[in-house]
Parts: sequence; C-alpha cells; structure tokens
Amino acid sequence: MAKVLTDREENYSQWYNDLVLKADLAENSAVRGCMVIKPYGYSIWEKMQAVLDGMFKETGHVNAYFPLFIPKSFFSKEASHVEGFAKECAVVTHYRLRNSEKGGIEVDPDAKLEEELIVRPTSETIIWNTYRNWIKSYRDLPLLVNQWANVVRWEMRTRLFLRTAEFLWQEGHTAHSSKQEALEEAEKMINVYASFAQEYLGIPVLIGTKSENERFAGAEETYCIEALMQDGKALQCGTSHFLAQNFAKAFDVKFLNKENKEEYVWATSWGVSTRLMGALIMAHSDNNGLVLPPKLAPFQVVIVPIYKTEEEFDKISVRVNELCNRLKENSISYKFDNRDSQRPGFKFAEWELKGVPVRIAIGPKDYDNNTWEVARRDTLEKEIVSDENLISKLVFLMDDIQKNIFRKAADFRESRTYTADTYEDFKDILNTKPGFILAHWDGTKETEEKIKEETKATIRLIPQNPVLEAGKCIYTGKPSKYRVIFAKSY
Amino acid sequence: MAKVLTDREENYSQWYNDLVLKADLAENSAVRGCMVIKPYGYSIWEKMQAVLDGMFKETGHVNAYFPLFIPKSFFSKEASHVEGFAKECAVVTHYRLRNSEKGGIEVDPDAKLEEELIVRPTSETIIWNTYRNWIKSYRDLPLLVNQWANVVRWEMRTRLFLRTAEFLWQEGHTAHSSKQEALEEAEKMINVYASFAQEYLGIPVLIGTKSENERFAGAEETYCIEALMQDGKALQCGTSHFLAQNFAKAFDVKFLNKENKEEYVWATSWGVSTRLMGALIMAHSDNNGLVLPPKLAPFQVVIVPIYKTEEEFDKISVRVNELCNRLKENSISYKFDNRDSQRPGFKFAEWELKGVPVRIAIGPKDYDNNTWEVARRDTLEKEIVSDENLISKLVFLMDDIQKNIFRKAADFRESRTYTADTYEDFKDILNTKPGFILAHWDGTKETEEKIKEETKATIRLIPQNPVLEAGKCIYTGKPSKYRVIFAKSY
Repeated sequence: MAKVLTDREENYSQWYNDLVLKADLAENSAVRGCMVIKPYGYSIWEKMQAVLDGMFKETGHVNAYFPLFIPKSFFSKEASHVEGFAKECAVVTHYRLRNSEKGGIEVDPDAKLEEELIVRPTSETIIWNTYRNWIKSYRDLPLLVNQWANVVRWEMRTRLFLRTAEFLWQEGHTAHSSKQEALEEAEKMINVYASFAQEYLGIPVLIGTKSENERFAGAEETYCIEALMQDGKALQCGTSHFLAQNFAKAFDVKFLNKENKEEYVWATSWGVSTRLMGALIMAHSDNNGLVLPPKLAPFQVVIVPIYKTEEEFDKISVRVNELCNRLKENSISYKFDNRDSQRPGFKFAEWELKGVPVRIAIGPKDYDNNTWEVARRDTLEKEIVSDENLISKLVFLMDDIQKNIFRKAADFRESRTYTADTYEDFKDILNTKPGFILAHWDGTKETEEKIKEETKATIRLIPQNPVLEAGKCIYTGKPSKYRVIFAKSY
Repeated sequence: MAKVLTDREENYSQWYNDLVLKADLAENSAVRGCMVIKPYGYSIWEKMQAVLDGMFKETGHVNAYFPLFIPKSFFSKEASHVEGFAKECAVVTHYRLRNSEKGGIEVDPDAKLEEELIVRPTSETIIWNTYRNWIKSYRDLPLLVNQWANVVRWEMRTRLFLRTAEFLWQEGHTAHSSKQEALEEAEKMINVYASFAQEYLGIPVLIGTKSENERFAGAEETYCIEALMQDGKALQCGTSHFLAQNFAKAFDVKFLNKENKEEYVWATSWGVSTRLMGALIMAHSDNNGLVLPPKLAPFQVVIVPIYKTEEEFDKISVRVNELCNRLKENSISYKFDNRDSQRPGFKFAEWELKGVPVRIAIGPKDYDNNTWEVARRDTLEKEIVSDENLISKLVFLMDDIQKNIFRKAADFRESRTYTADTYEDFKDILNTKPGFILAHWDGTKETEEKIKEETKATIRLIPQNPVLEAGKCIYTGKPSKYRVIFAKSY
C-alpha cells in the first residue's frame, strides 16, 4: 500500500494533520474553524467521557445543563474575566430570517435582539448567576456540578482537536463555604485529571500551577497538567481553577454560615476538552498511524481472515465466530473484518493506521494448526499463538500495551527534560532538541514576557512542591529559590 | 407540610410548572426561552440517553459530532426545508466584542461575518453537505450515524421541557442505497422509540404517520409516536422521517451502485429530545408530585431513618448501611437520607414530590422487630416487611411499579379514546373530556386546516395499518376509507 502519512520527522505538523484525517478521526467542516468529529474519532471521545464521568461521580459530582447563550452584560461583571474571554466570541444579534427579494434568505432586520447573546466560551458567568438562587445557607454547600457541553471561541488559527472554534468539553463548577475547601477541590480535580491522563491516555503529565500570565481569567490560582508531545512541545491537558470569591462577588452569591452570618461563596472550575484527542494522537502515534491505548480503543482487537476460496473463508469464519464469543466473555472488544472487497494487506495497513492495539490474522495453515497470528500495534511484533493460549495472551497484551506506551512516553519525556543554567543553554536546547526545561526565573511577569518574545517558550508550570535550590534567573540574573518549567507549547 | 403544588384538577398547566420547579427538574434561565436542567432532572435525562444510546448501537448506529453553526446559504438549498425551519433561528452575525467607550462591552462592528451563521435548529443540511465527501460507492452505504447535541429554535411561547428555545436531543441521519432500505430504517427507528417509550418511560404510544400538514419540512413521510397526557392532550414523543432523495439532491450526494451507475442517496432522520422529560412528568405524576418509573429513576429507593436520640440514629444507621450493601449487590439504586436538619415528615413529602419509586423508613420499633416500612410511590400504599423478605419485595416492586404505571396510563388512554361520527360529537368530546378521537377525514389539507381553525384539534397520526371501513368525513361528508386520529396537542 502506498504511504498515507507524511513522515513525522519530515513535517510533524503535516504528519499530525494527515493522521487525523486518514485515521477517520475528524475533518474540517464547511464552517470556519469548526470540525466534524467522525464516528471512529467520536467513539474514542465517548470512551474518555465515560471514564471521566465515572471519576467525577465517584468524587461526588453531579451533572446539569446550563444555556448555550450568555447575555452580553454578564461578561462585564467580572473584570478580569471579560478581558480574557469575552472578546473573540460568536455573537447572536438576530432571531429570525426572512425570504429575500433577491431569492434565498436574509436576516430580518426587524428581529434584532435587545441585548446580544454570546455563545458560551465558558460558563462561569451564567452558572454563577444561576447559583445565586440555589445557594442560601451553608446547608446548600458544597455544590458539586459538572456540565458536558460545546463551547465556542473564535480562534484565528485552528488545528483539528488542538484548537478549534467550537469544541466539546466538560466544565465543573463548584461552590464551597470556605477557602480551604475550594482549594482542596481544585487540587483534587487536577489530580483526577492527572490519573486519567496517566492511567487511560497513557500519557505522563506534570502537575503544577500557572504563573500569573498564564492563569485563567478570573482565577486566583490555576492548577494544570502538562504533557510533552513527540516534537518536544508541551500540551496543556487540563486545568482546575481556584476562583476565590470573584464570581460570587460579581454575581452576588452569598450564604448564611453556621453562625448565621452572610458570606460570599468560594468557587472552583475545571475542564478538559476534545483537545485530549490531540494529546492522545501526538503522544503515541508513529509513521504507520495511530497507536491507541487498549483502555480507550474503540475496539481492542481486529481479526483479519486470510483465504483464497469461499470454502476457506467459510471454514475460517466459523472459527473466528467462536473466538468472538470467547472475546466477549472476556470483555475484550473486537471487530471481525470480513469485508470481501479488500485484501489482507490493505486491511493490515488500515487497522495499523487506526491504531487498533492487537491484530489477529488466521489463514488456512493457522486453521489446520489451530493457531493464530498475533501482532501488537505498539511494537509491531508478531508471533504465532496456539488457540489454547490465545485469550491469556490477549489479556496480557491489553495490560502490557497500556503500560508500554506509557513507559515509552515517559522515557521520551525524560530524555527531553533538561536543566538550563544560562540563557544560552536555554535557547540552544529550544533550537536543537526542545522539551521541558527546568530553569530559574525571577518571578516577574516582565521577564516571562521577554523570554516568550525572544524564544516563544513560556512557563508551563510551577511545580507544586518545587525542590528548593538557590539560583539565578536565566534572563535577569536576579535571585530565585526554585526552578520552574519552561517549554514551547501548543 | 404545606401544599407545594397547585392541584392538577384546578390548573393543569400551573400544576405542571410547579412540579418541574419544585421537584428540582429544571428552571428558566436568564436567557429568554432557555432552561437550566437541574441535577435531579438531568440525571433522569442521562438515564434516558444511556438506554437510547444502547438501543441505537444495538441497531448498528454509531455516534459522531457535527458543527453547531450552519452557513445561512445551506438552508436555501432544500426548498421545503427552509420554509419549515430557517425562519425562527438564532443568527450569529459577529465574531468579536470590544470595550465600549461608555464602559462595558459592545459588538465590534469591524468583526462582521461575511456570511451569517445559523445556530442549528436541526442538522440535515450541514450533515448532508458532509456526507457528499463520505459517500462514493455502494460500499460506503448504509451510513448509520447519530448525534447527541443541543439545538435552538426561537420559539415565542416556551414551556419548560415541552418547548424551549434551546433543547437537547439526538438526531439520527442515515444514508442508504435504496428507497426500500431507507423506508425500513425510518420504520425501524420509530419502533425503537415506541419500545423505549413503553418499556422505559412507561407510556403507551400510538405509532403512525403524519398528514402532509404535520410532516417534517423536507420529508416525504414522517413516522411518529404520540402519547396522551392526563389533561387529554396529545404529546408527540418522537419522529422518524423518510427524506427520500431530497437532501441528496440538494447537496449533490451520489454513489456508484453495483452496476457502476451514479444514483442519488436515500435518507432518513429521526430524533427525540428533552421533550420526553415533559412526557414523563405529565403522563404519571399526581398532586403529590412526580411518579418515576423505576427504570429511569435517579435512585429507586430512598431510606429515611426515624429517631429521637443520637444513639438511636447510630444504631439505625448501622442497619441501614448493611441494607445499602445488599441493595448494591442487587443492583437497586438508593439514597440514604441521613440529613439531621430535616424531620421525617418533611423528607417523606420531599421524596414523594421527587417521585422516588419506593421509600423505606426505619424507626426504633422497626429496629427491634427487624422490620422495615415500605411505601410505594405509585399507589402510596405502605406495608411492614420483615428484613428477610425485604430484597425480594423490592425486586418485585421495581417490576410491579414499572408495569403498574404503564397500565394506569394505558387505562387512562383507553378511557379517553373515542370514535366520533359527526362533527357535533367531535366538538363535544373536545369540549368535555378530550382525548384521542378516531374519525373519518376526506384526506385533504383544506379540511384538516378548517378543523384545526375551529377546534384546535389536529390529525395526530394516520394509523399504520388502519382498519378499513367505509365512512364519511366528519367535516365535509365526503367518502373516507379509514379513520385517523385527532386530538388537541402540545
């Protein structure tokens, strides 16, 4: 089969785009910046949703649904929030179309809204406006609500999954009676995200907080998880914000505490999005295509029959159908690719491209020997396995592939994690083999901005429990107590 | 406890609204016509989604996601579709806000879109525009795709769940190589909806097709399920459309058939929405509140401890916690209402209002006797059950309540299903005890419209296999071969 992907080493960004399209994950739509998530891609997202939703419920959260539209005036209520969010947004100004005299349809000028509506870029404002009626007393707290929704941010440069005008996400919005409890919630949820990334996506992540520059608009602290992609750029995979009383004050949400005194409510918000699909793709895939972790693969095993005659096909199909029943019993998801229109070689390449963790092939010889050819996607290794050992082999592989792709990603990250003591070294790393760079920083916004201007690298995170170590800022030479983590990022 | 609901008999529509609000299902938001679905209501919707999604997958469908926005010009492409849909829509005209000189923010006039975007009222157009690139040959068919999404229709008069500007739904969009196959798909899906309504919602439904007047804009046949609410009005619960080649022609979607000839693709679309929440509420509830079918209740059992002292509470809690483990083992979902801030009477009323199928109470006497007080929500009957019989009793009740509320709804429908042979009788029924009316109709649009004008009743459906019976149209006296079903409707 002809090569379908651009080589990763040749043009990483083209490789990524080819992969998303060719593996049937997503494509651009007729609407600028909005993507279509295709069935194969969507089924991975559904698996992510199911696992995350279970984790949220396990930690006491419930789901709800808030409006898609937000009145324009709501954005002005939280001063820093409006700066960060309300600018590049889709704005609804009219509510009716009419037949045009020139043919076709046109906006009816008589149907202008009194106040424009913003398609939500995030829902803090409309949710906190709602919480005002839900929260009266400390007995109503904590309020632990999550929403699965679509949001829109009018991005100028978009890339499938990584940055799109419309994307799918979940946004948790919690309300608490104390600062301490809200801080604990924000930390708990970043840890939930980290577990999900590591145990399911198979991606090692660093946990920390954002510098003021990179913080969420309206937050007093932003916790984040950051992963390293195969091109040495960092990808922010999830954030959790401690919002203090900012939104409670903006929307006048108070509660009566146990002493019967009024206080403003403390808040958090946290979210992950279809961007995780981008992380999943970039963290593990190779020049043959996608490499999916068994825990999130739409199906874990594909079975390809090899035959010349219809008779052979019939015989083999009987055995494959028996196997399918055994797979079902063992909770291994599978697809029997019995298309007669394609040859085995084509099928092998297609399922490699789509990242199916294990491929099983069976030809007339395997049939006679009562064996199967088993190929794992992560290492591309093949072996012949006897029928009686097949299930235990597959159970082993599901676990081993999941661990192996995590280990590979962790090894890669380790090989691309540096400490830089001078600005020269710092720039040199970024120009040659970029990755995470631990470096001293004087703690000022100005220095961070200068470094960004000159190198495009930003502070990805401030470690949660940094190793204390006296040092000098790589840029200004001013004293610093610990290193922070820089990288170029998506 | 004071009465929280308006009596159903006194003001049905107020009763409904009270119930939605007081049972914590949903509320109006700050955005006109858009609702907030509260956690308790949303958890019922989640259960509906899970069951339906399973049924769709069982019948070979996969999920995908298409853009929220649709370019205005797309609506003009299918002539009858634009008439039915593109008028009362949210229109996005701008993509940026800016700081206003007067303070606050305003729409940036420089950020006007070249072509306005419509917030999807339904997705046929954007999906068929996408399918053009997905379908080349008969091998790509059938394409069986579903989407879970939010849609917006700018309704003037809105009612929680029943008619809201934004609502949640699923929309299936399938593509087929033959008319026959598309027709079978449309019928298959209306039957899936009917099974769901009857087996899960506990609502008996009639299955049939719509008259031309009531048909979906762009469809050649609309299948529907209709249920009767307790006020004698019909509620359309789901529709499935045979779209023929209309959208394929509008968006130029052709395939090469087995004879290597180009043909237009055949289509269906089908959907149910959060409107089903309205149906669920109105079909079963009473003046004490919601009555939920056990298969869709957020929790099936609530346990209320009755105690005076902390000691009693501790003792009882130990026994309740043991019970909780047994419930878990038997897959019965539950809530232990151990709030100390509320009295048992308050809790009883609250869980009745929220429709929990079974309430279990335990006081010191029950503790000593090793018994439980079990109350079922549908009949409000109470009985004392020994501990050893409890689980089997609950298993029985889950099944029995599910069946009983269906039976009650079916009995009600039967008592409100009439045949009318004269227009006088017809009007009389509508004015006294409305319901479904089987009547002869001459098959013309004009007659249907006149009857609607004069009585507000419409043809809810034409039965799929009507009993052939020569008769005369109740309005014009012209000959008719079978009766159709009229009702006033939501």
